[in-house]
Amino acid sequence: MRTPLERFYPLIPAGGVGSRLWPLSRAVEPKFLLDLTGTGTSLLRATYDRLIDLANSGVMVVTGQAHANAVTQQLSELRGSDLVLEPSPRDSAAAIGLAAAILYQRDSEAIIGSFAADHIISPVEDFQAVVREAVETAASGKIVTIGIEPTEPSTAFGYIKASQPLGLETAPHALAVDLFVEKPDANTAASYLASGDYTWNAGMFVAPAALMLKHLEANEPELYAGIMEIARAWDTPNREACMNRLWETLPKTAIDYAVAEPAAAAGDVAMVPGSFSWDDVGDFDAVARLNLEKQEEDLFVLGQAEQVLAQKSSGIVVSKTDRKISVIGMENVVVVDTPDALLVTCRSDAQSVKDTVATLKEKGLTHLL
Amino acid sequence: MRTPLERFYPLIPAGGVGSRLWPLSRAVEPKFLLDLTGTGTSLLRATYDRLIDLANSGVMVVTGQAHANAVTQQLSELRGSDLVLEPSPRDSAAAIGLAAAILYQRDSEAIIGSFAADHIISPVEDFQAVVREAVETAASGKIVTIGIEPTEPSTAFGYIKASQPLGLETAPHALAVDLFVEKPDANTAASYLASGDYTWNAGMFVAPAALMLKHLEANEPELYAGIMEIARAWDTPNREACMNRLWETLPKTAIDYAVAEPAAAAGDVAMVPGSFSWDDVGDFDAVARLNLEKQEEDLFVLGQAEQVLAQKSSGIVVSKTDRKISVIGMENVVVVDTPDALLVTCRSDAQSVKDTVATLKEKGLTHLL
Repeated sequence: MRTPLERFYPLIPAGGVGSRLWPLSRAVEPKFLLDLTGTGTSLLRATYDRLIDLANSGVMVVTGQAHANAVTQQLSELRGSDLVLEPSPRDSAAAIGLAAAILYQRDSEAIIGSFAADHIISPVEDFQAVVREAVETAASGKIVTIGIEPTEPSTAFGYIKASQPLGLETAPHALAVDLFVEKPDANTAASYLASGDYTWNAGMFVAPAALMLKHLEANEPELYAGIMEIARAWDTPNREACMNRLWETLPKTAIDYAVAEPAAAAGDVAMVPGSFSWDDVGDFDAVARLNLEKQEEDLFVLGQAEQVLAQKSSGIVVSKTDRKISVIGMENVVVVDTPDALLVTCRSDAQSVKDTVATLKEKGLTHLL
Repeated sequence: MRTPLERFYPLIPAGGVGSRLWPLSRAVEPKFLLDLTGTGTSLLRATYDRLIDLANSGVMVVTGQAHANAVTQQLSELRGSDLVLEPSPRDSAAAIGLAAAILYQRDSEAIIGSFAADHIISPVEDFQAVVREAVETAASGKIVTIGIEPTEPSTAFGYIKASQPLGLETAPHALAVDLFVEKPDANTAASYLASGDYTWNAGMFVAPAALMLKHLEANEPELYAGIMEIARAWDTPNREACMNRLWETLPKTAIDYAVAEPAAAAGDVAMVPGSFSWDDVGDFDAVARLNLEKQEEDLFVLGQAEQVLAQKSSGIVVSKTDRKISVIGMENVVVVDTPDALLVTCRSDAQSVKDTVATLKEKGLTHLL
């Protein structure tokens, strides 16, 4: 008889551009491939390193074909059979569903765990303890989300409403989940925070592959049939032919709609709260905050620090070229210098970068995105 | 008998880098060669155009050898004999003195007028009327400065203290000059402004070449001897040999010390006040102010305007590359984007650019200057 952890297979859906981090994050080099902390480690690599200790047999990565070389370069130990390359983006239900189906084919008792590739989490030990508890909870027959304890009434995240403890001996913090709620308005967010019943939905979940696929079959039968057929061919010579034939036929939908919300309604969802520090590094304000916390100086330079001359300035400079950068008298500035695009803004307007991206899209300047 | 204007020869000493306009202004492309108004006309070209209407026989330009190609490209009608190329910078007394000596050799009754290459003046008609009056005044045997009527108690300029009217029929506004004073402190500047006796010294003056050379001979005999020898060789085949032999031997001093101040002490200096709009465009704050006055928008783009995407921003962007520039939520910003250096500052800190230039110099990064 195996322990739950011996049946645990983490997977990382590595997608999304992170357009509020333009012009650093691009379609060809999206956020998850970037080092946003100046440590030489990309977000994807750090995510992989957090999970590999917990994994029974490697970590699976699902990403776009365009990123194959970058991902194998960053994760040189990743086995080819654990790298799922999407010919085109078909949303999270297809990406995570296929990975779950492949792992289910390999081990019908597999407990899978899905973790976004582009979040920053610390300390790693606290995160791993929460995941272990989530794995134990999943073994009791639950789809288990990890709920991030909110530190402010954020309107940027969906929330998870939990209720009574499940009373599991191996997972003392696990609670039943009533429902998932979408990003709230400011007042609603404040009431959520005050109630103490809500945690942020960071899209991390752990579940028996069989249970996840059961809900997927019920809610998205066509998607289910497609991914199961690809999964059966995955570890055979037919992998590529089958993938190429079926991938583009899969319905595009989010895992939240296809699995999480219907499963919550059916009483199949639990939550383990995570009190580790978590950030989805949504914009340059977050990049600045995360880095400035670590240092004495008021201005953080990501990239070629020796290229930057700063006087009386604070904020963040991202230097991706060989140009000299002089910043004088700028408070909370954001300067992102890349070979074909320059961004100058302030931390409080970092969210508005998405409007520039939208404008570039409208103008057909997709080579800059 | 010729009129004073028929003996008038304007000259333009075109030197100085304009280091507070770095990284736009560089040693290889100094301020006077730049178009700072987005009109396609450089400061030098505009200076030449203001003067050519008044000139009896062309305008003489004195500049560094390194700028010969740029100057002849911008001033294609300039005669070779009116282009004085300095093998190295030897300060303004040598530059202006040599030009005056050459013009004196050609016409011993020459009235010369010296005008900096990098100021912005309008309207041109008002400027020309003042210069005409200065030429008439010079013909009466004076070294005539043009005094800029001060609009604020600036500490950035030297001042001219005038006294009683000269009572010349052809130059009704001409006044005697008591003395020149160096850049004052703020209190002194305020008292100057209040008194009404002081005007800004913009370094523009008109004088009989013979009178100017007489003062130069008295104060700087070695310099005088050198420039007179070069001037005698100038319109002969010996020009280059003589220039190369003597130029580096000339004492380095400013025309103010060598001529203007001693001449004022001797009672030989007059002043004609100029009420035209005048700016020496000392920094990017001035560039922004001069350009924003002309337009409706809050952000002025010098260079490739189509490359700039601005949201909720004001100030100036100088675009000298093919890069896309996004500026979001920045008030009174200064962004100067060049191939090898980027400046991000605010209009109120525009003066501090000189500190960056000093730092680059200290670090030996002269290729960026």
